[in-house]
Amino acid sequence: MELAQGPRVRFSPFYSRSQQAGIEVASVYNKMVLPVATDNPTEDYEALTQRVALWDVGCQRQVQVYGPDALKLSTYISARDLSNLKIGVAKYAPLCDYQGRLINDPVVLRVDEETIWFSIADSDVLLWIRAIAGERGDEVEVREPDVSPLAVQGPKATDLASQVFGDWVKDLKFFHFRRITHEGIPLVLSRSGWSKQGGFELFLEDETKGEQLWDLIWEAGQQFGIRAGGPNNVERVENFLFSWGSDATRDCDPYESGIGKYVDLGVEHDFIGKAALKNKRVEGPDRELKGLLIDGEPLAPNPAPVGLRNPNGSYAGQTRIICYSPKYQRNLGLAVIEVPQNLPGTKVQVETIDGWRPATVADLPFDL
Amino acid sequence: MELAQGPRVRFSPFYSRSQQAGIEVASVYNKMVLPVATDNPTEDYEALTQRVALWDVGCQRQVQVYGPDALKLSTYISARDLSNLKIGVAKYAPLCDYQGRLINDPVVLRVDEETIWFSIADSDVLLWIRAIAGERGDEVEVREPDVSPLAVQGPKATDLASQVFGDWVKDLKFFHFRRITHEGIPLVLSRSGWSKQGGFELFLEDETKGEQLWDLIWEAGQQFGIRAGGPNNVERVENFLFSWGSDATRDCDPYESGIGKYVDLGVEHDFIGKAALKNKRVEGPDRELKGLLIDGEPLAPNPAPVGLRNPNGSYAGQTRIICYSPKYQRNLGLAVIEVPQNLPGTKVQVETIDGWRPATVADLPFDL
Repeated sequence: MELAQGPRVRFSPFYSRSQQAGIEVASVYNKMVLPVATDNPTEDYEALTQRVALWDVGCQRQVQVYGPDALKLSTYISARDLSNLKIGVAKYAPLCDYQGRLINDPVVLRVDEETIWFSIADSDVLLWIRAIAGERGDEVEVREPDVSPLAVQGPKATDLASQVFGDWVKDLKFFHFRRITHEGIPLVLSRSGWSKQGGFELFLEDETKGEQLWDLIWEAGQQFGIRAGGPNNVERVENFLFSWGSDATRDCDPYESGIGKYVDLGVEHDFIGKAALKNKRVEGPDRELKGLLIDGEPLAPNPAPVGLRNPNGSYAGQTRIICYSPKYQRNLGLAVIEVPQNLPGTKVQVETIDGWRPATVADLPFDL
Repeated sequence: MELAQGPRVRFSPFYSRSQQAGIEVASVYNKMVLPVATDNPTEDYEALTQRVALWDVGCQRQVQVYGPDALKLSTYISARDLSNLKIGVAKYAPLCDYQGRLINDPVVLRVDEETIWFSIADSDVLLWIRAIAGERGDEVEVREPDVSPLAVQGPKATDLASQVFGDWVKDLKFFHFRRITHEGIPLVLSRSGWSKQGGFELFLEDETKGEQLWDLIWEAGQQFGIRAGGPNNVERVENFLFSWGSDATRDCDPYESGIGKYVDLGVEHDFIGKAALKNKRVEGPDRELKGLLIDGEPLAPNPAPVGLRNPNGSYAGQTRIICYSPKYQRNLGLAVIEVPQNLPGTKVQVETIDGWRPATVADLPFDL
């Protein structure tokens, strides 16, 4: 299916460059085009895991909360306690609604004393925060700033970034960032990104300079074998990076989604959904996102949910994604599995185009 | 660009049928695939304006507000007064944030005493309403029900629908609906839809019956020359149906967006954004969505925003869409135009692939 063009679905400032660099498949994320793959996904995976990949993730929008109540409000809407968030540091933070349902899982950056960015997954956190701030009367301005992330990911990402920006980036800790101007380009350089290959996110703060920034990285990256790509499903399944909207159903809470460890239920931390999450914590989940080790020959990637059953044929859950892992040389999956089939080692069966295949439930991240 | 597949972007229950019927171009709307065109847009337009078209608009999601406070809360979040909304009747209602910015423009259906559906444009009204209800403590449940609209639009739509559902549909008034079960298919049949050709929206209430419903309409539609299509940009520009997210920028209010007449500022109606909108009403807009009559040879449709300038070269605004109208046999456009160039009859120039073209500002809807 060809993707229609129109102003309702926006393009990032890197889009034309990533298209020129060979991207042929795209999704839509936060009402923006998200380039995801070239015509050779095997090469995309190899560049990311062996060299360095450049991703247009401009669709990872920032919601900026600015004002005297910025930190207080941000802490109130986050299941993770953000009250101690330091300037120059980022935290991964599940956001829940009043019933404890996960509504987004942004990385939250404290840009300065009164400025916080929610670097969001694919749901309308801007509206969510505006509604809450409006009803509470918090003294904040909530808006989408001119910020477009470009991700440099892979084992050569640090060599490349230090060559472009200087040796200081080698000393930047994980989830720390610095706001700089480089060759006239204003950006926030953060050691982060949606892979486990290491790398950086460059939060460009001037959309007119997207091609200039892309070209800087692209040219310096030639000696490292840089390749255009996008968030990579195979790599992120191998290393379990949670994908909100893909990996869990819309009513799942953080515990069911495998990210319960980021929920801070301490007495000091009052936040939306806390009462519901405390109850869920006590009662335990009805279902849980787990890994699957699937027997047999390599399977084609299947991002469409398919059924899981117990050996006796009863319903056991639903896959969220299945793919073959080059790293582990076996088929892996993520699945929302009913309790008590969620225990590691449980034998289930997965629907494939060749019929039902045996599979084993595993903890996440995989330990293979 | 090929549209990637994955569980984050869902398919409606009509998707496979609309693909079989020739749809080749799709957008993403409310995180669902929205089929928009076959390989022959001219034929799509002719079917809609001369015969009957069948559209998979399952992406027009419903946000259901249910409970004793449903009507009160719905009225509070709507710039149009909904307090007198009757069961079986729908109203078009702009929703604004606290600053008066338009955040969605749903059709609101009162399904029963305590059940209201917001049939939404492409933004996350579910989160918006959950946030407001949560902070206010309203006694409602807010969720996305199993409802998938299928649109039957065109001059033959009434003949077709009455043949399938019975003669009673001929007497159904505009924006009135009835909840029925037909051949075991539960649905809400409403005289409404995003065209001015007349027709119905069938709000299917059981996603397992999408193909059954499609087939019923499709087979009965053969004698009327039915064709699969999607929301049609040319027809909706000719007749001015506002498209949230396309026609205005994200900070526009209802007055700037050409739908100010649906805002009820009366003393009885308290709603989010009222104070801001009262001020805007007094001050008048800085810019306004208007029509454009563009001189010269037929232009290819251009949904990408391009600049407008005054004859002296200064900035006059930005187009939102340009297309050639078969009905009026001239080029039309929608544009957000700076005051005072927004007055009808003002001469401006529009950027096209052939250079700047003369154009004239016109009121909406066009009166040609």
